[in-house]
Amino acid sequence: MNWNVYLSGEIHTDWRDQLKAGCEAHELPITFTSAVTNHDASDSAGDILGAEDNSFWRDHKSAKVNAIRTKQLIQNCDVAVVRFGDKYKQWNAAFDAGCCAALGKPYITLHSEDIVHPLKEVDGAAMAWATTPEQVVEILKYVVSQG
Amino acid sequence: MNWNVYLSGEIHTDWRDQLKAGCEAHELPITFTSAVTNHDASDSAGDILGAEDNSFWRDHKSAKVNAIRTKQLIQNCDVAVVRFGDKYKQWNAAFDAGCCAALGKPYITLHSEDIVHPLKEVDGAAMAWATTPEQVVEILKYVVSQG
Amino acid sequence: MNWNVYLSGEIHTDWRDQLKAGCEAHELPITFTSAVTNHDASDSAGDILGAEDNSFWRDHKSAKVNAIRTKQLIQNCDVAVVRFGDKYKQWNAAFDAGCCAALGKPYITLHSEDIVHPLKEVDGAAMAWATTPEQVVEILKYVVSQG
Amino acid sequence: MNWNVYLSGEIHTDWRDQLKAGCEAHELPITFTSAVTNHDASDSAGDILGAEDNSFWRDHKSAKVNAIRTKQLIQNCDVAVVRFGDKYKQWNAAFDAGCCAALGKPYITLHSEDIVHPLKEVDGAAMAWATTPEQVVEILKYVVSQG
Amino acid sequence: MNWNVYLSGEIHTDWRDQLKAGCEAHELPITFTSAVTNHDASDSAGDILGAEDNSFWRDHKSAKVNAIRTKQLIQNCDVAVVRFGDKYKQWNAAFDAGCCAALGKPYITLHSEDIVHPLKEVDGAAMAWATTPEQVVEILKYVVSQG
Amino acid sequence: MNWNVYLSGEIHTDWRDQLKAGCEAHELPITFTSAVTNHDASDSAGDILGAEDNSFWRDHKSAKVNAIRTKQLIQNCDVAVVRFGDKYKQWNAAFDAGCCAALGKPYITLHSEDIVHPLKEVDGAAMAWATTPEQVVEILKYVVSQG
Amino acid sequence: MNWNVYLSGEIHTDWRDQLKAGCEAHELPITFTSAVTNHDASDSAGDILGAEDNSFWRDHKSAKVNAIRTKQLIQNCDVAVVRFGDKYKQWNAAFDAGCCAALGKPYITLHSEDIVHPLKEVDGAAMAWATTPEQVVEILKYVVSQG
Amino acid sequence: MNWNVYLSGEIHTDWRDQLKAGCEAHELPITFTSAVTNHDASDSAGDILGAEDNSFWRDHKSAKVNAIRTKQLIQNCDVAVVRFGDKYKQWNAAFDAGCCAALGKPYITLHSEDIVHPLKEVDGAAMAWATTPEQVVEILKYVVSQG
Repeated sequence: MNWNVYLSGEIHTDWRDQLKAGCEAHELPITFTSAVTNHDASDSAGDILGAEDNSFWRDHKSAKVNAIRTKQLIQNCDVAVVRFGDKYKQWNAAFDAGCCAALGKPYITLHSEDIVHPLKEVDGAAMAWATTPEQVVEILKYVVSQG
Repeated sequence: MNWNVYLSGEIHTDWRDQLKAGCEAHELPITFTSAVTNHDASDSAGDILGAEDNSFWRDHKSAKVNAIRTKQLIQNCDVAVVRFGDKYKQWNAAFDAGCCAALGKPYITLHSEDIVHPLKEVDGAAMAWATTPEQVVEILKYVVSQG
Repeated sequence: MNWNVYLSGEIHTDWRDQLKAGCEAHELPITFTSAVTNHDASDSAGDILGAEDNSFWRDHKSAKVNAIRTKQLIQNCDVAVVRFGDKYKQWNAAFDAGCCAALGKPYITLHSEDIVHPLKEVDGAAMAWATTPEQVVEILKYVVSQG
Repeated sequence: MNWNVYLSGEIHTDWRDQLKAGCEAHELPITFTSAVTNHDASDSAGDILGAEDNSFWRDHKSAKVNAIRTKQLIQNCDVAVVRFGDKYKQWNAAFDAGCCAALGKPYITLHSEDIVHPLKEVDGAAMAWATTPEQVVEILKYVVSQG
Repeated sequence: MNWNVYLSGEIHTDWRDQLKAGCEAHELPITFTSAVTNHDASDSAGDILGAEDNSFWRDHKSAKVNAIRTKQLIQNCDVAVVRFGDKYKQWNAAFDAGCCAALGKPYITLHSEDIVHPLKEVDGAAMAWATTPEQVVEILKYVVSQG
Repeated sequence: MNWNVYLSGEIHTDWRDQLKAGCEAHELPITFTSAVTNHDASDSAGDILGAEDNSFWRDHKSAKVNAIRTKQLIQNCDVAVVRFGDKYKQWNAAFDAGCCAALGKPYITLHSEDIVHPLKEVDGAAMAWATTPEQVVEILKYVVSQG
Repeated sequence: MNWNVYLSGEIHTDWRDQLKAGCEAHELPITFTSAVTNHDASDSAGDILGAEDNSFWRDHKSAKVNAIRTKQLIQNCDVAVVRFGDKYKQWNAAFDAGCCAALGKPYITLHSEDIVHPLKEVDGAAMAWATTPEQVVEILKYVVSQG
Repeated sequence: MNWNVYLSGEIHTDWRDQLKAGCEAHELPITFTSAVTNHDASDSAGDILGAEDNSFWRDHKSAKVNAIRTKQLIQNCDVAVVRFGDKYKQWNAAFDAGCCAALGKPYITLHSEDIVHPLKEVDGAAMAWATTPEQVVEILKYVVSQG
């Protein structure tokens, strides 16, 4: 079995790259997917369909275009990893976790200890909480192992 | 038809009371539900089952006890209102919105204009964005009207 | 058993009233529901949340507010009646029929013979095609009868 | 990931060919599917099973044979594009959009600005509204991109 | 809890009446539902919508009108009893059993021993096989009992 | 797209072979599946697990072993063909049709005209009624065609 | 909202009575349901349909009759409490917990500390682990409280 | 069709190896999956995320990490084999059987005759009960056979 792992959340550090490199080093049978992680491309996704004066509608159009991608990738994943960094609101990461919970998709959270309390509901529905990408690599290695 | 409306999010202002009072003034056929909104009671919900030294597990236990309630109330609601205040992370509110989206439950967001951008994914899957409880009352009045 | 019957489509003739009157005359155990059928109220439903300059977004906001109501009513109905009149596009009626088909809700179409051909896909997934409200009353009377 | 994109609606212009050519030019990993788009073949699909005197039943038989195909293709698609031209009723396109909405399949509408108002419910449940096939190509290119 | 019990199959003997009388004698909290069991009314249900020359289409129209009723009643039942008599094909009873199996609705078959072999697939997915209405009454009495 | 077509019903004539040969002649992208069609093997499937004195339980054991196969094949098919011959009860065929209907799987019935009336409920939920294997081949050829 | 709480597992101590008495003392809006807890009645449930020589089939018949009841009660519950005593295999309790987990029903386990290790998978999918009926009463009181 | 068969339960005898060897000897198109069957590795799976003082939480963490794997494998299997040995509680095996039952996955139990009575509910929802791995091989050979 090949595993589809969806990577959600923070786009300002290289945790996705660390995770992928770690899994490749172990030759794990995993395909990683993600939202478009280029911040500007993501914010302007809706501009393809025409410019908007009103910033709410510009955001709305872009959010919906991005959701075409993320909705399908989450529905097709076997496991998700949801990353919360030490900056920004990252409500989209918590939103993705809620989708996973309702769809019965197991997910792993990745965040530092100082935000354990505000993330307690998100962690409560998670299957594991990791603090480093290395831990996530080890978990995935264990989960997808043969026999 | 009686409507079940789940109220998610911020617990530090009286928006729930305003909403209920507004709907009662119009005698709308709505039953409101919510997580337990007493902050201390919610944080210590798991203590019923024994004290924990480790704060992660204390939070975890409480989060899961709270989820017995919130999971069922969300699954049984017809509409949700998800409120984001101007303080705190409120990741649980975004998590609830994600659950609603995945379950096909329509929801209305309630927040001020200055957090439109970080909430664009949550608003993108919402059916309406309101900035005041009065607007939500008007929307609900329209939605549940006869004929 | 009480039956919930959702009435979708044309709002410019009194077919809903005829249907209700006919069912009341037979004292059938049916609760009828509908979208808001006041045209102006429906078009301006989103204005509650603030005016829009752009007509696409005005329509969009109103359509979503209306969908809070219609989505739940369709999900909760036992049977739907979908009416196509001799004027207007009525794409929302065909959209509702598609929702019913995908959700496994039986529906009855109500339209004159001259639009049989363009409605063949909608009729193909319907359980019955009627040409008069009286026929729908008779069908419902038969369907909800005791024993 | 390969993406399955279902193309619904208008069969009298070459928008499907433009869309496919545009996506092929970018070598996008997309498989396109459609109803049978030959008008006469589609109308006579049921004749395989014997001729009908009554035109309603001839349409009915053909509609159901066509639905064997379209029902499965819609259930198996990742994204749909629903096209409304400037002629004909095209109720089947709106019906397909309703199916997609109820099944949680994201869809993009493709139509000119002058029919925005009658399509507001269909657009309200869509993830994007485009006015040209080129825009749809750009959206799909963005949605299916790597990383 | 009140139990909804759907009674499917044979309409030429009084097994439904025996079953209801037996359950009433024990004052069991059961609501019984059924297809319309008047043979002529059932066969002519579609005639409400106009006469048909072709007997296949006459049957088809009536079958679909009847299905509005039976589909909803089966989806809403807690248990079904499926009766096979010693005459007639009764394919509709086997069809109802297949619906119940796929929907996860427990059902009880009621038939004599001499048709055990041809009914083995239908019995294989059933929760019980009874040979007399009295046995079904006893099973239901046991199943719906308090505490 | 490759299509999975499940062949249910009569095992005493060679309709399955005719159907397969016809589809192969057209090189249709179809994989056919079926219950085990060797009558004796099917009846004795449960004997692997030990002999039974009681014929009801022998049938029951075999029926459940067979259902491991048929349940999965039906859940994985895109279309089913359900054949009723002119002999035998064939309740298992009607049961399979009921499963398909409840699961939203389109199916085609194959039977002669003289049993139209007792099969009206089964035909009512079908997408097509054919009288010869050749017609089914033509329908499948049409349904799975490119573009 | 009234809550349906299903009580699964051990039938040799009076934990169900303690739980009910505790909840009644607090006047909690809870309806409790259970399998038939009379051991002999449960074991002989299938005898209604005729005696069996073979003890496997006697157990099988009774198990399926009991499942008519338990399957529906579990599907209709809001929360389950699953009790493991210090004797017996109690595989049916673990089976019920698996059903709850797959159906998305929150459940609370009730067992002493010395069987924590063999119950780790069952506890892992639970929302809470209690060691006394009093704790379960407190949890339920918290979960079903107003506002 | 390739079949996915999930092997649940006892890890202290070599029944999995016997089963695989038997199926390989017949060149059956089956992929076998399992939880991690190394007892120590399974118990310490959560230690990757940090050590725990409290044995309940150590077990809890490991159980949830293991569930990432088992939940997905069960959701993706076509058939499960659930083995109960003559020692240990094996509540996880009964839990897996409950998941399969609720998800509609057919499963075969494998256990000796002396535990038939306590396993009656688990066997009652199974499709077959075998006492030796050889019997399971024969059943699978029959189930996955061509034509």
